[in-house]
Amino acid sequence: MPKPFAWYEVVRSRADTGSVRCPDAVVVEEPLEIRVDGETIATTMRTPGQDAELTLGFLFAEGMIAGAGDVGSVAHCGRAGEEGRGNVIDVRSAGGHRIDVERVLEGRRWAPTSSACGVCGRRTVEDLLARVPRAPSRSVDVELAARAVAELGASQPAFARTGGLHAAAIRGADGALLAAAEDVGRHNAVDKAVGSLLARGLLGRGQLGPPPAVLAVSGRSSFEIVQKAAMAGIACIASVSAPSSLAIDLAREAGIVLLGFVRGDGWNAYAHAERLESAGERLPSAPPPA
Amino acid sequence: MPKPFAWYEVVRSRADTGSVRCPDAVVVEEPLEIRVDGETIATTMRTPGQDAELTLGFLFAEGMIAGAGDVGSVAHCGRAGEEGRGNVIDVRSAGGHRIDVERVLEGRRWAPTSSACGVCGRRTVEDLLARVPRAPSRSVDVELAARAVAELGASQPAFARTGGLHAAAIRGADGALLAAAEDVGRHNAVDKAVGSLLARGLLGRGQLGPPPAVLAVSGRSSFEIVQKAAMAGIACIASVSAPSSLAIDLAREAGIVLLGFVRGDGWNAYAHAERLESAGERLPSAPPPA
Repeated sequence: MPKPFAWYEVVRSRADTGSVRCPDAVVVEEPLEIRVDGETIATTMRTPGQDAELTLGFLFAEGMIAGAGDVGSVAHCGRAGEEGRGNVIDVRSAGGHRIDVERVLEGRRWAPTSSACGVCGRRTVEDLLARVPRAPSRSVDVELAARAVAELGASQPAFARTGGLHAAAIRGADGALLAAAEDVGRHNAVDKAVGSLLARGLLGRGQLGPPPAVLAVSGRSSFEIVQKAAMAGIACIASVSAPSSLAIDLAREAGIVLLGFVRGDGWNAYAHAERLESAGERLPSAPPPA
Repeated sequence: MPKPFAWYEVVRSRADTGSVRCPDAVVVEEPLEIRVDGETIATTMRTPGQDAELTLGFLFAEGMIAGAGDVGSVAHCGRAGEEGRGNVIDVRSAGGHRIDVERVLEGRRWAPTSSACGVCGRRTVEDLLARVPRAPSRSVDVELAARAVAELGASQPAFARTGGLHAAAIRGADGALLAAAEDVGRHNAVDKAVGSLLARGLLGRGQLGPPPAVLAVSGRSSFEIVQKAAMAGIACIASVSAPSSLAIDLAREAGIVLLGFVRGDGWNAYAHAERLESAGERLPSAPPPA
């Protein structure tokens, strides 16, 4: 059985202990490509484990199977030890039956937005990491990042009413609020904030002014949040909650400072802690520059 | 500007006040179909508002545009008052430029898993509601549902370690735990739990035994969670957190009892409160049977 979590070295900062380097358990996120009779029908970002159940449940919810009787077998593709092994699963139709994927794929010709954009056809973590732009190496003021998270509520007027919204805010290196948005979907909130910079010429080809410094998000940091930040050249992501393994891998690769559990009493740094500064000084506990 | 929340009548039950009917603010969730030069490239579930920014940010993250200079206009399609108006947006390429959607659509021929399965090509709330099966009308023991949520932690061993996982559990009408799963994605956790029933013949064509009674989930209830529960014939969804407007609409339409904010001190019922029972009796505050 694959473990649902993995250990990562982080810098953990709390008011009572100061900053220390220690291991932290992180939830694993990896792509799963689902095939039916050899044809790829979907890729989803998931935590490995119960992959056969995930696949059956997905096909059932999509109306492709009416029960397990429609299925002959469900098995991971590839040989043991092969790259990407465990991240592709193939469903075979039961004898005398053919699982109808055409009807569903037809309806999907208009590809729906993935909950993990830019994932298709990339089965390994390496594939996913390879295509993301590298952020220029910039130092990040950790107090500014913590404040960006603390002040998320101010840019989230509807949250207090409903308890059901995610917020995203983008700030400059001077702490100025450049864009804020809220949405039922975390990724939408980030798209709205980034799109607001684009619309005002503050991001993208020929952008005016300095690049955005901090993206603060109200929920968890998943692969797609880091992917969107990397595309926007953002130096730091700061989140109230936990990151996934793939979010950390991607942030490390893309040169993004990744902070999680940013709350009143401290924060955890999961990527590029060596670029964090407090009052213009590097943190004493930080690892040497990468 | 569209409002990010809407008012719904709910039954609110707390230890100190008992159950009362009152209005509750709920975050709005609706589909947005994104077109580029008239061609549909994605459908996403979002909270209306900042739709142009959402669209620009999405195209930028997907690598379709390098900046706002690639875009001539972004505007909602349809005439004022028309059905679905506001839920389709069209991006036109800037003069002398053509936004390259082919490259991206090509990579997406393998349709990725939508974060809102079964949404494609359905632009209105009515479209979305029309295709979901109706659950048979069954009464639901509210204490059993509350216990299912309280005991989610027991089926979520990795959560305590990482703080980054969602849990889903399915219980029978007698309270028996039928399936449990955890995943970085809420929808995956539900697919895994449903798939586990399918794999054991407890769900689907020719199923053994009675239908599942309660789906407990650790996060918010969105459209897709209710859609998956409806496909599985589940009588009640009980969640720790808030539902979206579309989750409520769908639960009301599909005949599913929808509970939110199920915590130590009470719960809110958003759909079919008239089917709730406590110790075999209908709740005094409940609305008359629908």
